[in-house]
Amino acid sequence: MTVINEKINLHSKGYTDIINITEEVAEIVAKHKVENAQVLVYVPGSTASITTIEYEPGLLKDLPEAFDKFAPMSHSYHHDETWHDGNGYAHVRASMIGNSESFPVINKELYLGTWQQIVLIDFDNKPRTRSVIVQIVY
Amino acid sequence: MTVINEKINLHSKGYTDIINITEEVAEIVAKHKVENAQVLVYVPGSTASITTIEYEPGLLKDLPEAFDKFAPMSHSYHHDETWHDGNGYAHVRASMIGNSESFPVINKELYLGTWQQIVLIDFDNKPRTRSVIVQIVY
Amino acid sequence: MTVINEKINLHSKGYTDIINITEEVAEIVAKHKVENAQVLVYVPGSTASITTIEYEPGLLKDLPEAFDKFAPMSHSYHHDETWHDGNGYAHVRASMIGNSESFPVINKELYLGTWQQIVLIDFDNKPRTRSVIVQIVY
Repeated sequence: MTVINEKINLHSKGYTDIINITEEVAEIVAKHKVENAQVLVYVPGSTASITTIEYEPGLLKDLPEAFDKFAPMSHSYHHDETWHDGNGYAHVRASMIGNSESFPVINKELYLGTWQQIVLIDFDNKPRTRSVIVQIVY
Repeated sequence: MTVINEKINLHSKGYTDIINITEEVAEIVAKHKVENAQVLVYVPGSTASITTIEYEPGLLKDLPEAFDKFAPMSHSYHHDETWHDGNGYAHVRASMIGNSESFPVINKELYLGTWQQIVLIDFDNKPRTRSVIVQIVY
Repeated sequence: MTVINEKINLHSKGYTDIINITEEVAEIVAKHKVENAQVLVYVPGSTASITTIEYEPGLLKDLPEAFDKFAPMSHSYHHDETWHDGNGYAHVRASMIGNSESFPVINKELYLGTWQQIVLIDFDNKPRTRSVIVQIVY
């Protein structure tokens, strides 16, 4: 079996910044010419997540608004009693959404819906540098 | 290593329709006689999700009610300004729950709890045809 | 290819008990001396989840409080009409968070952020014995 590890390095603005990384993931898959495989897209850390979304301007507002209901930025968090860094909301959101998504590659194609993009969401309350791991197993 | 890709084709009623696909997944695993493996159950698209639940009538009402708190159908979404298709709630819910779940196969058995079923949830606001990918790696 | 299945057995207090299992997972990875691999951490059942969090006392209060907004313990659930066991909230939370997380192993290291721990969350409304599966594929 083969395990391939690649990295996508990027900058985020934080504050639930949603970054489309579909093309970068697809290029890594294409580069390795795998026929059938599984791709894990994973971001380390406790204030960022990987998910998919139709990447269009409306949903880029809707999704943060929905998160703000579940874990409002304005709310006071016990986490801030520990670190005073004001990002308790970011941790709660990231734990809920999770750090990774897995995708099948079938006949060389990353198997996504027509209106489905892979995104990194950076919930932290400051700009960050992030490394996304793209791990292909086959 | 071996990568097996199979498809389950099904029709959903949409509107957070929750469809039990446990038997179909278990049959695919049994058919390939794998001893120890990992199974990815994945639905492409941006308005449907895969998760697990105890598939009984009470929870089939509770789960949609909980989603309606997080992303109410009655709410107005920016997504509708883009497409006017009224399914903004469906996108938000699908991004939150995710498109896949992974399961271990141990000694030929799909390793689930006694009261745990694998389900497709179709959040879209119309009936849909869906293809669920069952990918076995071992 | 190789598929390794290991188990972590533990006791939880239930009621959204959050248990740090990072060291146990890391020890299993170290024991098998894998270079590059993928690790699935999975809990069977319909009232428990696997996710990651910065394991510090503040967030151990914040996360349950956030869950109590989405699926309050005090709320009345249809699930209880079926079983009268009072844990409808636990099922809803577990379906939302999911039963597993996958992690890359790169150069023998379980690839986590500095402040990121792997946790089992037991939502059930009583103490439970749980078996977490750690499946390594490479």
